[in-house]
Amino acid sequence: MLVYADHAATTEMSETAIAAMTDAMRRVWGNPSSLHSVGQEAKVVLENAREEIAKALRATAKEITFTSGGSEADNQAILSAVKLGAAKNKKHIISTKFEHHAVLHVLEKLAKEGYEITLLDVHENGIVDPEDVRNAIRPDTALVTVMYANNEIGTIQPIREIGAICRERGVLFHTDAVQAIGHIPVDVVKDNIDLLSLSAHKFHGPKGVGVLFARRGIRLATLIEGGAQERGKRAGTENIPSIVGMAAAIKEAVANLDANAAKVVPLRDKLITGLRKIPYSHLNGDRDRRVPGIVNFCFEGIEGESLLLLLDMRGISSSSGSACTSGSLDPSHVLLSLGIPHEVAHGSLRLSIDETNTEEQIDYILEAVPQVVDYLRKMSPVWEDLESGKRNHFFAK
Amino acid sequence: MLVYADHAATTEMSETAIAAMTDAMRRVWGNPSSLHSVGQEAKVVLENAREEIAKALRATAKEITFTSGGSEADNQAILSAVKLGAAKNKKHIISTKFEHHAVLHVLEKLAKEGYEITLLDVHENGIVDPEDVRNAIRPDTALVTVMYANNEIGTIQPIREIGAICRERGVLFHTDAVQAIGHIPVDVVKDNIDLLSLSAHKFHGPKGVGVLFARRGIRLATLIEGGAQERGKRAGTENIPSIVGMAAAIKEAVANLDANAAKVVPLRDKLITGLRKIPYSHLNGDRDRRVPGIVNFCFEGIEGESLLLLLDMRGISSSSGSACTSGSLDPSHVLLSLGIPHEVAHGSLRLSIDETNTEEQIDYILEAVPQVVDYLRKMSPVWEDLESGKRNHFFAK
Repeated sequence: MLVYADHAATTEMSETAIAAMTDAMRRVWGNPSSLHSVGQEAKVVLENAREEIAKALRATAKEITFTSGGSEADNQAILSAVKLGAAKNKKHIISTKFEHHAVLHVLEKLAKEGYEITLLDVHENGIVDPEDVRNAIRPDTALVTVMYANNEIGTIQPIREIGAICRERGVLFHTDAVQAIGHIPVDVVKDNIDLLSLSAHKFHGPKGVGVLFARRGIRLATLIEGGAQERGKRAGTENIPSIVGMAAAIKEAVANLDANAAKVVPLRDKLITGLRKIPYSHLNGDRDRRVPGIVNFCFEGIEGESLLLLLDMRGISSSSGSACTSGSLDPSHVLLSLGIPHEVAHGSLRLSIDETNTEEQIDYILEAVPQVVDYLRKMSPVWEDLESGKRNHFFAK
Repeated sequence: MLVYADHAATTEMSETAIAAMTDAMRRVWGNPSSLHSVGQEAKVVLENAREEIAKALRATAKEITFTSGGSEADNQAILSAVKLGAAKNKKHIISTKFEHHAVLHVLEKLAKEGYEITLLDVHENGIVDPEDVRNAIRPDTALVTVMYANNEIGTIQPIREIGAICRERGVLFHTDAVQAIGHIPVDVVKDNIDLLSLSAHKFHGPKGVGVLFARRGIRLATLIEGGAQERGKRAGTENIPSIVGMAAAIKEAVANLDANAAKVVPLRDKLITGLRKIPYSHLNGDRDRRVPGIVNFCFEGIEGESLLLLLDMRGISSSSGSACTSGSLDPSHVLLSLGIPHEVAHGSLRLSIDETNTEEQIDYILEAVPQVVDYLRKMSPVWEDLESGKRNHFFAK
């Protein structure tokens, strides 16, 4: 059986998105900056897609800037806030320890340039406490950036509360919503969001395209300079076919949000219940405050990469954490931020499912994982030490 | 008759590119950073596309970094050279007055940050003199960036000679080859190129994807931070379907380079000969040292935007200059750099054809343009002044 359980890494395009995109490739290939009809027809399609995407977030079309994906949107959002802050001599940024690297690496760069960065703890449940945000805000704070849902463990952050605190204190608030959009309801108005990043390929849209939402009145800085596309804020000929594919995908995902959750949540819960039966296993992140599809476990005494390779041999696609950092020998910074020690964090498994998965596939996973964990433990010197009492277990049996 | 004569703005995707891309959308949708088979199969496809594209430039696969297009590649190329230069306290950059804005705007930004920018003249023929480059190089020159072929007038620059001078003087050399790749032969080795930018949608490939070539040993700086994709030099999940479409398009374009030129050059020459018959018209840029498909004329006494709108009503898609700056009221910086005065530069028309155009279409253009020019001149107060001798003509009759 083939089971793709790595939807947090990327998703297969939906038939709706493929159809919209291939139609646009053939029919709307003009350059929307051209003044002739071929270009102007493309411009109409571009602006319709912008409206559609805005609607899905409860934003307005003018608040939507198209980018090449979530990473670019994260980079540009932070750069913009930093520029706005610098004009008021504000050089302090608040974020969390378990953000995506598209945020953390930008912050590391800014730290070298003299910015002060506060990275908040996310506590054992993988959720930022809004009061921690409140306490960290200083008069020179230029930006708070907290992800909407974590990409490795799936926990949903109290974005609305954090947004309210930021608004009250007059601090810009950005959220990387790459793992949230199309999976849980997001409303930029109610959620008090100033800047938001999303990526189409996480909700069955095309790769290479995303959005930076910026609330009206927030002046974006340009990351890519050149032509006057996107109101001068993002140069480069607009990628209309992909934008059209993204619009179709977001419309479809948002329309089916409840129906998909109703299907996925029971599957996820079955997965959690089943995997918890494995001795010395641990569900990472809050049991309930999580997106429908992401489950992340640690299994003591094993190495996550071996686990996923053996699962792959059985047809199950999974991950030990983020695809973006795979190949790295370091344990996940997300799991470390939860207080999980290095040697245990190495034994992690992320299964990310969605509405395309079936109950038979979940049963198949629940048959395979315990067997593979058992097999790997039998060969593991660490497990031997744990069993013999030379080492102490970290999790309860 | 419908005549698309704006191929320098963008091109329709070829059937080959569409087929390759839609196949990849369905078949290779995995994340190449994932360690499981779905991801690793995607990685193989990604690396095959990289090889294919490298081959088309006579580069090696490791020298190819995928970007979201030509603008991003230009930005990253310049940023990289600037960082390498800064380490040696080199803060001088040489470029030309008629570069694309994806280069010029980055340079303007750098000027504000304390970099010294020398913009070379391109002379009346629209061609940079390599000796001007040689004379401008200083001990603190970090970068020379000269476009391969100009996007508005089509003139080809002496890249090989400029590259040789830069190599001799130990200065990095970047070329924006967006209008050259797929239209004329480009060989990064023979042409002494260190950094090169290209964009797929200019040669019947998809939009939203391009390449930054960096010669082995040149350390790229990252413009988009995040995951470790593209050897850590460009974050963001790789856009495999578009990359595959780009590889198919470049392979096709390069294989047909001679055949396409043999078809397009006579059409272009017919266009030039025909348009020159219009009184007080002027071909911008050298008659012969130009890419096969780009023709740019000035017609005294008219306004380019009206010209292109009236041509559009007759089914002809054209441009007054670059699509990226359309809507701007300023005359083209490219035409001004050729020494053409403001009021004449406003009366410009770019026709960019390729192998998909036919001789019947050229005949149709040659019938329409003189009629429209004549019609506009009859309503033009400037033309009245020119005819009555109140103003002097700039061009010969």
